[in-house]
Amino acid sequence: MKNTLNVGMIGYKFMGKAHSNGWRQAPHFFDLKARPVLHTICGRDVDAARKAAEQLGWTHVSGDWREVVSNPEIDIVDVTTANDTHAEISIAALRAGKAVICEKPLAVTAAEARAMRDAAKATKRVNMVCHNYRRIPAIVLAKAMIDAGELGEIYHYRARYLQDWIVDPAFPLVWRLQGKIAGSGAHGDINAHIIDLGRYLVGEMDEVCALLHTFIKERPLPEAEGGLAARGGKKMGKVTVDDAAMAIGRFKGGALFNLEATRFALGRKNGIQLEINGSKGSLYFDFEDMNRLKFYNNLDPAGRHGFRDILVTDAAHAYANAWWPGGHIIGYEHTFVHTLADLVNATVSGQSVQPTFEDGYRNQVVLEAMENSSKQKQWVKIKY
Amino acid sequence: MKNTLNVGMIGYKFMGKAHSNGWRQAPHFFDLKARPVLHTICGRDVDAARKAAEQLGWTHVSGDWREVVSNPEIDIVDVTTANDTHAEISIAALRAGKAVICEKPLAVTAAEARAMRDAAKATKRVNMVCHNYRRIPAIVLAKAMIDAGELGEIYHYRARYLQDWIVDPAFPLVWRLQGKIAGSGAHGDINAHIIDLGRYLVGEMDEVCALLHTFIKERPLPEAEGGLAARGGKKMGKVTVDDAAMAIGRFKGGALFNLEATRFALGRKNGIQLEINGSKGSLYFDFEDMNRLKFYNNLDPAGRHGFRDILVTDAAHAYANAWWPGGHIIGYEHTFVHTLADLVNATVSGQSVQPTFEDGYRNQVVLEAMENSSKQKQWVKIKY
Amino acid sequence: MKNTLNVGMIGYKFMGKAHSNGWRQAPHFFDLKARPVLHTICGRDVDAARKAAEQLGWTHVSGDWREVVSNPEIDIVDVTTANDTHAEISIAALRAGKAVICEKPLAVTAAEARAMRDAAKATKRVNMVCHNYRRIPAIVLAKAMIDAGELGEIYHYRARYLQDWIVDPAFPLVWRLQGKIAGSGAHGDINAHIIDLGRYLVGEMDEVCALLHTFIKERPLPEAEGGLAARGGKKMGKVTVDDAAMAIGRFKGGALFNLEATRFALGRKNGIQLEINGSKGSLYFDFEDMNRLKFYNNLDPAGRHGFRDILVTDAAHAYANAWWPGGHIIGYEHTFVHTLADLVNATVSGQSVQPTFEDGYRNQVVLEAMENSSKQKQWVKIKY
Amino acid sequence: MKNTLNVGMIGYKFMGKAHSNGWRQAPHFFDLKARPVLHTICGRDVDAARKAAEQLGWTHVSGDWREVVSNPEIDIVDVTTANDTHAEISIAALRAGKAVICEKPLAVTAAEARAMRDAAKATKRVNMVCHNYRRIPAIVLAKAMIDAGELGEIYHYRARYLQDWIVDPAFPLVWRLQGKIAGSGAHGDINAHIIDLGRYLVGEMDEVCALLHTFIKERPLPEAEGGLAARGGKKMGKVTVDDAAMAIGRFKGGALFNLEATRFALGRKNGIQLEINGSKGSLYFDFEDMNRLKFYNNLDPAGRHGFRDILVTDAAHAYANAWWPGGHIIGYEHTFVHTLADLVNATVSGQSVQPTFEDGYRNQVVLEAMENSSKQKQWVKIKY
Repeated sequence: MKNTLNVGMIGYKFMGKAHSNGWRQAPHFFDLKARPVLHTICGRDVDAARKAAEQLGWTHVSGDWREVVSNPEIDIVDVTTANDTHAEISIAALRAGKAVICEKPLAVTAAEARAMRDAAKATKRVNMVCHNYRRIPAIVLAKAMIDAGELGEIYHYRARYLQDWIVDPAFPLVWRLQGKIAGSGAHGDINAHIIDLGRYLVGEMDEVCALLHTFIKERPLPEAEGGLAARGGKKMGKVTVDDAAMAIGRFKGGALFNLEATRFALGRKNGIQLEINGSKGSLYFDFEDMNRLKFYNNLDPAGRHGFRDILVTDAAHAYANAWWPGGHIIGYEHTFVHTLADLVNATVSGQSVQPTFEDGYRNQVVLEAMENSSKQKQWVKIKY
Repeated sequence: MKNTLNVGMIGYKFMGKAHSNGWRQAPHFFDLKARPVLHTICGRDVDAARKAAEQLGWTHVSGDWREVVSNPEIDIVDVTTANDTHAEISIAALRAGKAVICEKPLAVTAAEARAMRDAAKATKRVNMVCHNYRRIPAIVLAKAMIDAGELGEIYHYRARYLQDWIVDPAFPLVWRLQGKIAGSGAHGDINAHIIDLGRYLVGEMDEVCALLHTFIKERPLPEAEGGLAARGGKKMGKVTVDDAAMAIGRFKGGALFNLEATRFALGRKNGIQLEINGSKGSLYFDFEDMNRLKFYNNLDPAGRHGFRDILVTDAAHAYANAWWPGGHIIGYEHTFVHTLADLVNATVSGQSVQPTFEDGYRNQVVLEAMENSSKQKQWVKIKY
Repeated sequence: MKNTLNVGMIGYKFMGKAHSNGWRQAPHFFDLKARPVLHTICGRDVDAARKAAEQLGWTHVSGDWREVVSNPEIDIVDVTTANDTHAEISIAALRAGKAVICEKPLAVTAAEARAMRDAAKATKRVNMVCHNYRRIPAIVLAKAMIDAGELGEIYHYRARYLQDWIVDPAFPLVWRLQGKIAGSGAHGDINAHIIDLGRYLVGEMDEVCALLHTFIKERPLPEAEGGLAARGGKKMGKVTVDDAAMAIGRFKGGALFNLEATRFALGRKNGIQLEINGSKGSLYFDFEDMNRLKFYNNLDPAGRHGFRDILVTDAAHAYANAWWPGGHIIGYEHTFVHTLADLVNATVSGQSVQPTFEDGYRNQVVLEAMENSSKQKQWVKIKY
Repeated sequence: MKNTLNVGMIGYKFMGKAHSNGWRQAPHFFDLKARPVLHTICGRDVDAARKAAEQLGWTHVSGDWREVVSNPEIDIVDVTTANDTHAEISIAALRAGKAVICEKPLAVTAAEARAMRDAAKATKRVNMVCHNYRRIPAIVLAKAMIDAGELGEIYHYRARYLQDWIVDPAFPLVWRLQGKIAGSGAHGDINAHIIDLGRYLVGEMDEVCALLHTFIKERPLPEAEGGLAARGGKKMGKVTVDDAAMAIGRFKGGALFNLEATRFALGRKNGIQLEINGSKGSLYFDFEDMNRLKFYNNLDPAGRHGFRDILVTDAAHAYANAWWPGGHIIGYEHTFVHTLADLVNATVSGQSVQPTFEDGYRNQVVLEAMENSSKQKQWVKIKY
């Protein structure tokens, strides 16, 4: 088998930067079964893609994703484009025999996501949706503890994803605030993450009642795209996505969930706050302190109970042990390194690697159930 | 006018202990318009009440609340009994011309609460529901900041009340777990507090969807009452209250709320965690660190933003300034001292003092709306 | 034996307020062998003392401490006056056969303190120095854990006492900043506390090198005393006490200590931050969060290590269990209630109760060794 | 001028891994004046160096540092070897006309460090000592705030560097515990860091009294080197470095410092805890939460004071803005990326870049003054 895997990445913005770093860094910190090569970066604006290639370390540049997908030199296709293009590119790549990793949310609708999942099944290619937070060492530890029964029966999953980047009404109507391109707002962008973590850590959801809301109904149309630095002009446009999404519901296993995702929580930049309460203990996690996991162990002796502040940087902690000695923390981008390292190994061995397109599809089903619940103002059953 | 006010307290257990302390301490730390006198304590079990009188500092003991309520020497009646007796006692006391303070929840049903509110209006007596958390100095500060516009327009009220005292399935079926006496479980006991704080800090609620749930359906019947130390026997009984209550909804002013109250969050002993996000700033409060209020001020200069950890013990902070120099914290029972100090002054001056029975009634209406929402599995409008 | 103990308190300001509260509250929360009676309060300014008596709950007022000390009705003398008067009053009280509790620092010099200790020994009266922080439940827990070997051999005692009330150069030259009356500044006032806690928790000190420093050499003379609200006039006076004191040294048992006390740490109001590192675990305590003790247990299983945040309010925790259910915190003044409750019981049974005048004397010896070390700029042996 | 700079790195272990990452990552995140090329890695054990080259991304391998230093293709020499080899290699590299970056501590003695400093001056080559913590964004912010006067006059610099990796007496006598190779223990390894940060943030030190101590006097000789995973055999050897170092003293500007570095603080993995108190505000930093800086601003309005928890990941924050959006934290290794990015730009422009060998020399002088103070048990003046 080959010692290298050639990667073709479609998209080159925020996620392109994060994925590129992951591809570059993975072989320097993990024992991989093959070395990933940053072969081709692709974007409709070839000049911008070329500039990105130089900055991010890619060898070739393409202006047409079909070219990349059909290139026999490419082993893995990495899809980091806007949400409404995920399905077409990913399905084509799978059919061209590539391993595929696609950014979340997997698609704009559950139907699209189902088609992607079906294509993955049909082609039997390695397929992964990039829910990178599953590979935060603290989350890996949480999963291991829950699976080992350290929390006992789970009663509550309480999760927030809090941001504040559009509180200013003058912030313009960028693509993420346009329903046609983004599918939804805080809901698909960040609620999707805590839904995925809930499914990963606790199990499948059964029924839900949700409320999606838009606080600022109109915003200035952007004069030019520019991420967080985008500036609006004088013309106004209608905001067609939610600013915030809340949901209460039940897991199939009997636990309750309470979710909230918002872009209107001043001071919370990327605050993913999870709490899980079980019959034997509780866990708490905050992404802004992502190297820590708080653990309350009800089996501790009398008078010695308390949330333990585990700094998840020890040799005993998965992924963390590849980096630095205990107490030397890692950051946001490391989650992509972990994800892509596992994808490389899975691609070489031809094994499935979670989270798959099936996970991405189920996530989309939950997202859609919540959207329906909000529109119809009623409880909705979650059916895959 | 008299220099003293004679208090008659009905009930002598957990709340009786807390209120007694409040009556004793208030005159030593606050300039009161009259000195409250711990005149009569009342309980059906006179021996127990007598023991409590000695421990808690009361002069007279009674086994019949009607005797207390009709005693012309009594100025203020303090109702700290089980929830299902609040209405009868309070209404009788009001009609006897007493000022009345009643523990929360005001009643077991909204109808009962309305009758109490109506009696208060009709008799024009000073009436107060003991939502003591309104007078935590940090909450007083939060209220002042919101009223002064320091948070701008409010977008989110996110509140949890987390406890863990009944996670053990062997914990017996005490009165607080019996629907007939308690009305409800976590819902009326602790959700009531964060509903009240939401109404106090943000405003009236408009519509809600709630889910009340009981994790442990049967528990051993108690051999003897004993608060947290109660022990169950071999016979089992059905739990007829909720273990946990969650709700999402809208305030009339447009903000969203997300509430969760549970007795199944291991490690959270009395964790009231509130977050309020507005257009100019955010506040965060946790009762387990009740001397602190966290404040994010979006008007801070670039690069200097961050949640400020305000230790609410300074001379500038209401109530706190009556106790000790800055940095010397106060505790749980002080909230009762503040409440009763204000009640004493209001009683002397004959002025209304919040939270009134009207507040208690509205709280009950919200509680009932949530119960209905949960039973009917649908959204419910809140109408007073 | 008598069912009551009559207390005579000399002094009525900050400490007088805190002690009065302790005397009043102790019998309502603890099972005492006798009930303390707030018999006589005493101050040179009889009018002020009379006002204090009313506010604080004392029955009699005296303008002459000798009268109190010689009053046969008085059982316990409580000395809360300025430091330079402790010795005379306490010795007289002991000789008059009273149990005596004296505020810290016990005296202005080690020689004075030795005389007090000797008087206590000679008269065999119950004698206590009011190092109230020993009876913070978290400190009691720390002591129990260290005594039980849960920390193993102790290597480090690292303690800070940080305040900020005189950072403003315009803050006037109150008595606490005058060497003649106060003896020293931050050193005797607050360093004394962390020295005492070090002796209590770790053991006797062996040698020390210290540095005492005064940042602001001159301050306005006060127009009137007024505690933290005192205001200075136009005349300036020389500051004759230290603003900050630091010390490094060794315990006799081999552990190292590092102490720092300052009134120049903006933002730290009453920040007593202790850390103890042993061969099996570590403890951390901060007085501004005095209901918590952080415990790192090296015996926890691999991957599960972390400082445990023990909320010291459970039934399993000494003193805390007398107050409220777990999660309901207590405050600063409770430490005095605990201290005086233990003093009452010791007085009835005639047993010694720590910390004794011997502890106060040893504390003074350490303080003086540090002062000498600083003056002479050399290491000093600590000899009792 | 060239578009690339060839780097030759001597050493390939812990620091070699961290520096390699820095060289690789810098051009992908920062606009550099030239692109650094990982040209040659060098180690006495060529096989190990070859393995490291592959893992870390170096093109050439050498077994002789002299070869690297004299290689005309090399532009920058990066010294990450054991402390006792720093001087010889660095001086040779400077004399060969290379820009040099050397790990801290610069040398084993102040005399050696002076020779290095002198060589740097004489050769006029770019020279840098790798105090990477200066380029933690939170520290950069602290420096900017102090320089801008936001803290006012500085009164206190209180710093700890706490680790726990050798608490187990069975941990073997690795080179870091051998005086001949390491120079000193916690003192030169980690105290050096907080000395450097003190000099950087507050200024030059004037006089000091220190205590260095070894808790475990003998340890098993290592059977094989292996970093933290090294295992000891049956033979014992004498520990010839300190386990802990404490110091108190004065800065030339009048502020006081209190330093403590130890490898015996269980639970503290890499806990650098700094507090700086000034006349206008205070700062607090903990490396285990290195993305945060706590700031107390005394100019905040009454009742609104509190330590602000600044998440130093915003666009307004130096270095942080090159990585990810606000709220997405960075980790330990990023400090090396920042350091090497600045070194690359300085090398191209031929400008000096702090911290220079002069800083490394001064650090060594302070270290040596403290060692002398501890040996002689007396205060020592610091003279460069």
